Amino acid sequence: MVIIIQKEENFNEWYNEIVEKAELSDKRYPIKGMNVWTPYGWKIMRHIDTYIRQELDRTGHDEVCFPLLIPETEFKKEKDHIKGFDAEVYWVTHAGLNELDVRLVVRPTSETAMYPMFSLWVRSHTDLPLKIYQIVNTFRYETKQTRSFIRVREIHFFESHTCHDSEEDAQRQVEEDFVILERVMKKLCLPYSLLRRTDWDKFPGAYYTVGIDTAMPNGRTLQIGSIHHYRTNFSEPYNISFEDANGERRFVHQTTYGMSERLVGAVIGVHGDDKGLVLPPALAPIQAIIIPIISKGNADTVNNATQDLSRRLNDAGIRCQVDDRDERPGSKYFHWEIRGVPLRLELGMRDIENGLVTYARRNDGQKGTFAIADAEKEAESILDGIADAMLQAAWEKQRTAVQDVESLQDPPEKILRFGWCQEEECGHEIEDRFDLTLLGTPYNDDGYEGKCIVCGKATKKAGYAARSM
Amino acid sequence: MVIIIQKEENFNEWYNEIVEKAELSDKRYPIKGMNVWTPYGWKIMRHIDTYIRQELDRTGHDEVCFPLLIPETEFKKEKDHIKGFDAEVYWVTHAGLNELDVRLVVRPTSETAMYPMFSLWVRSHTDLPLKIYQIVNTFRYETKQTRSFIRVREIHFFESHTCHDSEEDAQRQVEEDFVILERVMKKLCLPYSLLRRTDWDKFPGAYYTVGIDTAMPNGRTLQIGSIHHYRTNFSEPYNISFEDANGERRFVHQTTYGMSERLVGAVIGVHGDDKGLVLPPALAPIQAIIIPIISKGNADTVNNATQDLSRRLNDAGIRCQVDDRDERPGSKYFHWEIRGVPLRLELGMRDIENGLVTYARRNDGQKGTFAIADAEKEAESILDGIADAMLQAAWEKQRTAVQDVESLQDPPEKILRFGWCQEEECGHEIEDRFDLTLLGTPYNDDGYEGKCIVCGKATKKAGYAARSM
Repeated sequence: MVIIIQKEENFNEWYNEIVEKAELSDKRYPIKGMNVWTPYGWKIMRHIDTYIRQELDRTGHDEVCFPLLIPETEFKKEKDHIKGFDAEVYWVTHAGLNELDVRLVVRPTSETAMYPMFSLWVRSHTDLPLKIYQIVNTFRYETKQTRSFIRVREIHFFESHTCHDSEEDAQRQVEEDFVILERVMKKLCLPYSLLRRTDWDKFPGAYYTVGIDTAMPNGRTLQIGSIHHYRTNFSEPYNISFEDANGERRFVHQTTYGMSERLVGAVIGVHGDDKGLVLPPALAPIQAIIIPIISKGNADTVNNATQDLSRRLNDAGIRCQVDDRDERPGSKYFHWEIRGVPLRLELGMRDIENGLVTYARRNDGQKGTFAIADAEKEAESILDGIADAMLQAAWEKQRTAVQDVESLQDPPEKILRFGWCQEEECGHEIEDRFDLTLLGTPYNDDGYEGKCIVCGKATKKAGYAARSM
Repeated sequence: MVIIIQKEENFNEWYNEIVEKAELSDKRYPIKGMNVWTPYGWKIMRHIDTYIRQELDRTGHDEVCFPLLIPETEFKKEKDHIKGFDAEVYWVTHAGLNELDVRLVVRPTSETAMYPMFSLWVRSHTDLPLKIYQIVNTFRYETKQTRSFIRVREIHFFESHTCHDSEEDAQRQVEEDFVILERVMKKLCLPYSLLRRTDWDKFPGAYYTVGIDTAMPNGRTLQIGSIHHYRTNFSEPYNISFEDANGERRFVHQTTYGMSERLVGAVIGVHGDDKGLVLPPALAPIQAIIIPIISKGNADTVNNATQDLSRRLNDAGIRCQVDDRDERPGSKYFHWEIRGVPLRLELGMRDIENGLVTYARRNDGQKGTFAIADAEKEAESILDGIADAMLQAAWEKQRTAVQDVESLQDPPEKILRFGWCQEEECGHEIEDRFDLTLLGTPYNDDGYEGKCIVCGKATKKAGYAARSM
C-alpha cells in the first residue's frame, strides 16, 4: 500500500489519505467529527502530552482534573463568554429517566468550571500565583466540515489557567508561556507565529488573545493554540479576589494557555510528503525500524544480529523495533515510510561481515552506513540530525509562506502581510471584501513601516491575513 | 491541623476528613458527586494509571481513546445492557441551539462505543486476539449518597476490551487479567477477593462477571473492579465476526476488565490511620520528606546537608523533598503524616556530626538511624520494607474480615461466609431477609463443604455476603 495522492496537487485529499493509511485515527465512528484515536495516533498524541506536562511541571504548574459538566448557571456568569459559545456547546438535559432542573454544558473549555472553585481556593496574596493545568477532551458542536485532528467535535486539549496579584504578573505569565511554547514546538519541529488577534476575534471574555499559527502547505494557516490575558474580566463575575499585603481585597488577573490535537494535524501537514507521514523523532512511536535483509541460509545469523541491534538501541533509550514479518524488504520500506518512522536501518549478511549498518533518513531520503559497534551513538546522532533538519526546513517554509502585498486584489495563495492602521473599520473591510481572516498583528514588534492597505494612513503595524484551515 | 475523628469510631466521617485534609479531592464543585481532582490526589491516581498502563502494555494491549458520546441507536443494540443502564446515564439532547435527531449517551462504559468499530476492525482470524484499553472518565447518574472516589458521578476508569476466536481463548484472557490484577494490587499494597457474581448481579449482557472486592474497616466490602466474560452476547448484536482458518464466519468471544478511582478509596480506607493517610511507596507523590532540624547558628550547614541529601535521593529515583518552610518541626510532622508520606527523614547538627540520618516509617511509626553515606541504598530498602509490611498487614485484615456463619441471625459486622446451594431462590432469600448483598462464590475452588444456610442442602460452594460500600 502506498500513498496515491500528491501533496502539492490536492493537499486536503492527501491529508485524509495519510491519516487513514498511517492508521492515526478512525473516522468511521457513528458520530461525525468524533473520531477514534487508534493506537499509533494515540501514541503520538501521548508523546506530545508528555512534553507539555514536562514544561508545565518545570514552570511550577500543578496538574488537576476538573469535571466535564458545567451547570448552565455557572456557564452564564461571564456574558461575552456565553455569547461566544452559545451556538457550539452540547447540552445534557436528562439524567436517567429525569429531566434535570439545571441543564449541564459539556465543557467547551474550562474557565466556567474552574473559576467558581478558584474563588474558594484564592483567599490571600500568599495563595498567588495560582498555576494549574489539565489535559482533557473538550467538545464543540462544529457545523463546518470536519477534518481529523484539525476540526473535530471532541478535541484532545491541554489548558493552563493562572491567577496573579497584578496585571504585570499576569503579563509575565504570558511571557513564560511563550518560552514553554518554543520548547514544545522544537520537539515537534514546528514553526509558528504569534499574532495578537483583532478585538472582534479574541477569545470571548479576554482582554487580549495571542493566536499561535502555523502555515500549512496549501497557503492557509492553522491556529494550533492560543494564549489569553483576561485581566479581571472573569475574576469579577466569579468573585476571585484576594487580600493584598495591605489588607485590601482585590480581584486577581488571569491568563490561560491552550493547545490541542491540532498539533498532530500540523505535524502531518508541515512534515509529510508524497510517501506518507514524516514524524519528528521526539514524537515517533518507533524511532528506528530495523529491516533484516535475509537471503538463503543466513536467516539465523541475520535475525540474531538484528535482534541484538534492537536490544542495544532500546537499552540506549531509542524506541526501536525489528520488522521480521514474512514480507519483501521493499514492501516493508513502504509500510514504515507511510507511518513516518524517522530512521530505517538495514542489516544483511554483507553488512554484518563488514561490521556496518545501512541507514536511510525518512525526512530527506539520505542514506549511508555506520559501524555496528557504534550503533547507539550513531543512531542517536542521526536522529538529532533529522530533528535539526526538519525544524530548519519547516521554518524556511513558514518564512516563504508569507508574502508582502500592497493591495488585496486576488484571493491569496499565501499568507499576506500589509500595512494596517489598526482601525476596526479598515479591518472589517479587509475581511469582507477579500474573504480573508485578519489574523492580527505581530505580538512582538517587527520594525514594520508602511501604509494602511485600505485607508492609506501611515502605520508601524503590519496586518496578517489568510484563509484559515 | 490534625485528624480529629478516629477511624474505629466513625469510619465514614474519618474517611471524609482524610480526603479533605490530605487535599486529595475537592467536593465543593457545584454538581454533587462530580469532584475536582486537586494536585495531590491526581498525582496518586496518575501513579495508579502508570502501573495499569505498564501491565496492559506488557501483555500486548494497545491503548486507544474512543469518543465520549454514544448514539442512542448503538447504545440500545444489546437489550440487557440498556436495561441495566437506563436509569443511570446522562443524555445529551441538544447541540448549540438545535435539538439532536438522535440523542447521545455520555459513556457509562464503552462496550457500545467500541463494538460498532470492532465489527469494522475484525475481519479474519489473523486479526485476533484484539486487545485494547483506554483510561478515561465515565459517567453514572448516582442517586445514592455520593462519597469521594467510592461513589461519584464522574469516574476515572480504565477499561480493557478483548476479542477472541474461541470461548477458551477468552477464558485465557480472564486468567491473564488475574495476573495483571495481582501485580497492580501489589503496588497498591491492597488485598482482594475474586468472587463470581450471582446471575442476577452480573454485568448487563455478561455471560459471567468476576467481582474484585476489598474488605473495608467498617465491615463492608468495596468492589474495586470487575472482569467479564461475554461469550458472544455482544458480538452477535454488534456483528463482530471473523473468517476462521476454514473460511467459516464465526462470532468473536469477548472479555472486558475494568477498575476505577475506587482504588484510591480502598487505599485510603485500608491503610489510613488516626493520623491521616498512609500511602504505599509506589503511589506516594513524595516518598521521603526531609525535615531540617535547625537551631541557632547552624541553619546554613543543616540546609546544605538536607538539600544535598534530597538531591542524592532524587537522583537515585526516590521522590524526595525538603520541607524548609518556616514552621516548627512538630507541625511539619503532622502536615506530612496527614498526607501519608511513607518515610520521614530528619537531619540536624548532631546527626550531621555523627554521619547519620534519623528516620520514621509512616505505616507503623518505627524509628531508627542510618549512615548518610549509604542514604540511597538505605532509603530504598526502608521503602521496600514499608511496602512489604503494608501488604502483609492488609492481607491479614482481609482474612480476619471474613467470618464463617451457620445462620444469618444478625446483620453482619463482617463479611459472612456460609454454605449456599447456588439456587436463585435461596440466594434471594439471603439478600431479602437479611438485607445483605450476596457477593457470589469464590472464583477459585476453596475446598468448602457445608450445607445451604437457607434450604440445608449439602453444597461444596460457599456464598459470601456483606453490606457493600
